[in-house]
Amino acid sequence: MGATTQRLRLDLGYDGGGFAGWARQPGQRTVQATCEEALARIIRAEVALTVAGRTDAGVHATGQVAHADVARSSWEELAGTLARRTNGVLPPDVRVRQVTAVPDDFDARFGALSRCYRYRVSDAPYGVDPLRRHDTLAWPRPLDLERLAVASAGLVGEHDFAAYCRRRPGATTVRAVLDLRWRREPDGVLVATVRADAFCHSMVRGLVGALLAVGEGRRPPEWPASLLAMRERAGAVTVAPPHGLTLVAVDYPPPDRWAERAAQTRRLRVPQLRVPQLRVPQLGAPAPG
Amino acid sequence: MGATTQRLRLDLGYDGGGFAGWARQPGQRTVQATCEEALARIIRAEVALTVAGRTDAGVHATGQVAHADVARSSWEELAGTLARRTNGVLPPDVRVRQVTAVPDDFDARFGALSRCYRYRVSDAPYGVDPLRRHDTLAWPRPLDLERLAVASAGLVGEHDFAAYCRRRPGATTVRAVLDLRWRREPDGVLVATVRADAFCHSMVRGLVGALLAVGEGRRPPEWPASLLAMRERAGAVTVAPPHGLTLVAVDYPPPDRWAERAAQTRRLRVPQLRVPQLRVPQLGAPAPG
Repeated sequence: MGATTQRLRLDLGYDGGGFAGWARQPGQRTVQATCEEALARIIRAEVALTVAGRTDAGVHATGQVAHADVARSSWEELAGTLARRTNGVLPPDVRVRQVTAVPDDFDARFGALSRCYRYRVSDAPYGVDPLRRHDTLAWPRPLDLERLAVASAGLVGEHDFAAYCRRRPGATTVRAVLDLRWRREPDGVLVATVRADAFCHSMVRGLVGALLAVGEGRRPPEWPASLLAMRERAGAVTVAPPHGLTLVAVDYPPPDRWAERAAQTRRLRVPQLRVPQLRVPQLGAPAPG
Repeated sequence: MGATTQRLRLDLGYDGGGFAGWARQPGQRTVQATCEEALARIIRAEVALTVAGRTDAGVHATGQVAHADVARSSWEELAGTLARRTNGVLPPDVRVRQVTAVPDDFDARFGALSRCYRYRVSDAPYGVDPLRRHDTLAWPRPLDLERLAVASAGLVGEHDFAAYCRRRPGATTVRAVLDLRWRREPDGVLVATVRADAFCHSMVRGLVGALLAVGEGRRPPEWPASLLAMRERAGAVTVAPPHGLTLVAVDYPPPDRWAERAAQTRRLRVPQLRVPQLRVPQLGAPAPG
């Protein structure tokens, strides 16, 4: 890197409905493969994307962030036209919102401070406004905003979210949930916003599933937080469907702290993968949303 | 009507993308036929819907209103369950938001005071957020909100909108545009809201097409209003695509004025259809949006 390559930050949006998630998988239509192939066609060289949030199949994004290193000569040739040209070959369900040249110490994955997701639910008796049926869950029973708020407050903070995560050997399930709130939009749709340093696999959808059980009155408001005492996935938690979920933003520190943040996150993460017995409970590593 | 039938008001929403418009057409998938067939299945009798806004192919609705007369005995049997049961057989791209029993003098079409449409346009360099690509037009050049506002103000009021309408022999093209304004949403999308007593065919899309030419700087702000002097469709006006357009609301007077309003609108409309030479220039008749 450096002299001959240029690091690029890519801001991406996609409708997850037609994709088997972000991550490349043989024989599947994935966001990663679709974007890498479009970029490769324009740059005329292989491109590997590193992403902030590895969204699951069916999960959407309006504020996904990735980085890639390209030959400096390609960048100098394309510069301002790369986003437009790439969008010209991408299908309409994925867009490159912006391409920015960044220093080599920008890391879309390890450099992120937090990820922010939203989850949309309609509890209207008729279901979902047809125009929003692709990114909004229809819930068949009325939901109480006050109960959702009380239950959500109990989940904010640094906790072991093992009850809400698919287990990965050697990986910590400790995460810091920085914000988790619900609002009812003017059209009646309930929107949850959840921000954490990182999420383990299917964690947002597990949290939303538990909260909906409270919102409809089936579980008491203390229930979702009470599960934080568990050291393994809670069978009683129903994971909410993917199509209500959208990655809306990824936050990074100011540029002078990029290198420090990436090194810090990597230190926490790498030993856990190599030496499973050394579980570091302070800060979560980035993982699939 | 009356003793043996019950008039129902139906509030409807649909994604127009999969429909050849509201009105029944042989061999086409239309909103009217889809809804009438679903209702007929539940009521076990033919149902004929009269609608406030006969939307074109590809045009959406969140606030469409229709009425139908059903046997009073059917209504007494189904009452509170009709909307839920009908939604159970309808496809997900159309929803019955509400069914309400109304007096016979409620007329979804002739009783309406005004129709309100919105048009969504993204002028972002990357196009449209993939999640909203079904109800938002991508405009390839930047649009100026101030220019859109100035040009729109010149169209408000009662005018002959012949320049913006597909000609129908004997039908007046005089309409009262009560409100026409643009705003830029926090995500950058431009949204036009236009309310009129009624619209003639493709009028909203003609107005939006002319305004976009102003917004991008290709035409002066006075241009759209200057076309109101024309007595026939203006060839220079490009009709905006249907998928950005949504019928969001229909307004009715208070119940004690329903009969009066319907009779008034019908008086204006019926002579025009039967005696083409008698054009009544006061108030527009409801017509396709």
